[in-house]
Amino acid sequence: MAQSRPSAAPVAVHPVAARPGGRTAAVRKAVLTATEDALIEHGFAGIDLPSIARSAGVGKTTIYRRWGTAQALVADLLDDMATGSVSATRTGDLDADLSANAELLVRTLTHPRQGPLFAALIAAATHDRDTKTALAKFYRRRVEEWSLPILDAIDRGDVPANTDATAVVRHLSSPLYYQFLTTTTPLDDNAAELAVRTTLAALHAHCFTRSGAAPTSPAAATTSPRPRR
Amino acid sequence: MAQSRPSAAPVAVHPVAARPGGRTAAVRKAVLTATEDALIEHGFAGIDLPSIARSAGVGKTTIYRRWGTAQALVADLLDDMATGSVSATRTGDLDADLSANAELLVRTLTHPRQGPLFAALIAAATHDRDTKTALAKFYRRRVEEWSLPILDAIDRGDVPANTDATAVVRHLSSPLYYQFLTTTTPLDDNAAELAVRTTLAALHAHCFTRSGAAPTSPAAATTSPRPRR
Repeated sequence: MAQSRPSAAPVAVHPVAARPGGRTAAVRKAVLTATEDALIEHGFAGIDLPSIARSAGVGKTTIYRRWGTAQALVADLLDDMATGSVSATRTGDLDADLSANAELLVRTLTHPRQGPLFAALIAAATHDRDTKTALAKFYRRRVEEWSLPILDAIDRGDVPANTDATAVVRHLSSPLYYQFLTTTTPLDDNAAELAVRTTLAALHAHCFTRSGAAPTSPAAATTSPRPRR
Repeated sequence: MAQSRPSAAPVAVHPVAARPGGRTAAVRKAVLTATEDALIEHGFAGIDLPSIARSAGVGKTTIYRRWGTAQALVADLLDDMATGSVSATRTGDLDADLSANAELLVRTLTHPRQGPLFAALIAAATHDRDTKTALAKFYRRRVEEWSLPILDAIDRGDVPANTDATAVVRHLSSPLYYQFLTTTTPLDDNAAELAVRTTLAALHAHCFTRSGAAPTSPAAATTSPRPRR
């Protein structure tokens, strides 16, 4: 799917096709769009239920009955975003697949709407426990989806069988989020490429092998970059 | 300094010794402490100048004249935090020095006061341009300080001369901040150790060598984990 539309918006927050579900689905879509708008414009503090109802063109009662709190609205938005995310690229070449993931992430974080949305969600999670739980769940699902190409590489025998695929995906994402959140340096393809190179280097140095099944041969121990002292 | 008090609070936001400067310095300290309290409690939206004046026990006129805006208060707080940060550990062993940095960062982000403070500052930077600039400056200074042990390693010949020391420090910090901000998994020494191992692996694979002076020998090219296609 990702390969057939490489220039599409990286995270399909609003799928083009109408969802099944009729009026209920249409209300949800309108409410989640209004929630997104409020987050982008004012952050979590901007999620006022009566304003969301007005923007979405739905009754206040509906919002209060179906969601009830700003936290519930954000959790549902994250649930919707997880469902609409672009599938992992799986070309059969680990380097290419990791590059596709890193480049997708750069496109998402530099996207004029999705960048501020992710920043607002991360910010909201820093001072709201329910939002933090919902955000962690969103990333857990994204990371699992993007673990598939690493599981493919395990199947091909390109990386050790005891590699923690989710740790690889998280490592790949980390420097891009860190740059996004703590610097004013814009993300670009160089940042994506460095993330891929460092991740592959760590992978080949067996940094992500699960400790319960660590390599035990003397050769493997010798090539370990940081023997225990 | 860090070695002589390993269990001290990791970032000395408020040095124990009184600073020179008399009343002006005392006012600044009281105002910055009140700003910190407001950030930890309510985030950036909680920085109301009259409330800060009241909490700090100083006149509103003083706050408006000397700082004027919430952004200026946060920028001054970050400036103060940068000055008070713990110096880099420099034992002469790169692994030990990187471990000290990663463990300090874990202690900072899990500290009951400093963790929420950093989270609030990062959150504030996502929706305020001046705060983002001030935060980036704070991290630039911290990263430069913590580059010193890597420059030492370059001097010793332990890592290539064209290594970008600041890129190494940023890489080391990234997974810890990513875990802190996007998961509910508490940071611990295992996270610090993984950050060190991945950073050393990437360092030994020449991921952080400046492109203008990349290794050109065939041997170096062969060991590169991701040759250009």
